[in-house]
Amino acid sequence: MLKDLWLVGIGTGSPAHMTLEGMQALRDASVILLPLKGDDKEALAALRYGIINATGTQAKIVTFDYPLRDPSLPYGPRVTTWHDEIARRWSAALATVEVAGPVALLVWGDPSLYDSTLRIAERLDPRPTIHVVPGITAIQALTAAHAIPLNTVNGPVKITTGRQLRDHGWPEGEETLVVLLDGACSFRALDPAGLKIWWGAYLGSAEQILCAGKLAEVADEITARRGEARAQHGWIMDTYLLRRDHQLGD
Amino acid sequence: MLKDLWLVGIGTGSPAHMTLEGMQALRDASVILLPLKGDDKEALAALRYGIINATGTQAKIVTFDYPLRDPSLPYGPRVTTWHDEIARRWSAALATVEVAGPVALLVWGDPSLYDSTLRIAERLDPRPTIHVVPGITAIQALTAAHAIPLNTVNGPVKITTGRQLRDHGWPEGEETLVVLLDGACSFRALDPAGLKIWWGAYLGSAEQILCAGKLAEVADEITARRGEARAQHGWIMDTYLLRRDHQLGD
Repeated sequence: MLKDLWLVGIGTGSPAHMTLEGMQALRDASVILLPLKGDDKEALAALRYGIINATGTQAKIVTFDYPLRDPSLPYGPRVTTWHDEIARRWSAALATVEVAGPVALLVWGDPSLYDSTLRIAERLDPRPTIHVVPGITAIQALTAAHAIPLNTVNGPVKITTGRQLRDHGWPEGEETLVVLLDGACSFRALDPAGLKIWWGAYLGSAEQILCAGKLAEVADEITARRGEARAQHGWIMDTYLLRRDHQLGD
Repeated sequence: MLKDLWLVGIGTGSPAHMTLEGMQALRDASVILLPLKGDDKEALAALRYGIINATGTQAKIVTFDYPLRDPSLPYGPRVTTWHDEIARRWSAALATVEVAGPVALLVWGDPSLYDSTLRIAERLDPRPTIHVVPGITAIQALTAAHAIPLNTVNGPVKITTGRQLRDHGWPEGEETLVVLLDGACSFRALDPAGLKIWWGAYLGSAEQILCAGKLAEVADEITARRGEARAQHGWIMDTYLLRRDHQLGD
């Protein structure tokens, strides 16, 4: 019987991103629910097992397969039915073992940021108590790697997605933009005048790549390096910060 | 001679927020630079010592006093001269000991988010190599405590300050707002229709207080509880997330 579900943020690629709270939650777990394949990369799966082993947990590992999204559905219903099906698979997987205590799920980055695990967990019936352990996000790994502040003094920051940037352009009046979930180098759709970019891929891991400079000068380099890295690894996770620098002129 | 300066994010109030990387950076430090008084609370100082002791570090602890800000200066120069003076005090404090290896500074939350340590470090002359260890921010501690996502599906998020909210009101077109550095319950300046709030104080600590609901219904309660808690503790750190809920009506 699933009473307590722990969503444990594990950071972005370095096992050293794990918090003491996250390590303890995995140690205290009776069962760890782990995706076996689909929506996952071998390198990431290895990293996840490395973290689990490092905690010394005695939890049973129960695996499930990710379903495929139905491409015939429009975006909204496609996501909804996909989440419904994942929740069903969690329940089915948990029904195969005795759940004598907390169940834990490992979540890349932080469970609150562009991640569906919380929304899937809310579909469980009966609904367990949901506990969230914060983890280091790609945003923090990016600013740490470049050793830059996220915001200017007292300045706001907008977190957005590649899709939003392509569809709506630079949001009026914004100074700092962080772009996630961008598989298409959407910064290329912007007028680069007055913009600086700090880009990073495989953040926090040994394969980390960084590039920064005036957008007009480094956009091509980032696009090229992203393409090469993606071809080499078979996958890529990247993110970037854009800042309007008034000293560069608008 | 200061060659490597480590800015270590320590999270928001729970020693369990420490990452393995942060623990290691404090263990590897030759010197830890610690504010002695000013701009600091006794409870927070105790927490900081607790973290340092938990790492088992052999680092020398070197303290400095925070200068006072000059209230006769306008905001920009006031911050600039204050940062200049803090950098001088770091250098003066470090000149009193042999710096045989890395120097570490503990930073609440994450060094990238509404924190001046990076800007102060850039003033050091000669300038050391600056290393940043990301930490759990108040934003993550808030969403974790409420077990809510930061963003809606594919939706942007704006991070802003109490001052910005008071001066400019609800930013046009935004759906999700996170407000930091708000000493004045600035949510009261908004038309509450259609808005939900998730508020938290002393996040991550044993004293954590949470309140959530429709802004129209809980604004008074939050204001009252904030005032009581501040009077009781002598200080308060709080933050909140506001979301426009179209089902509540605009």
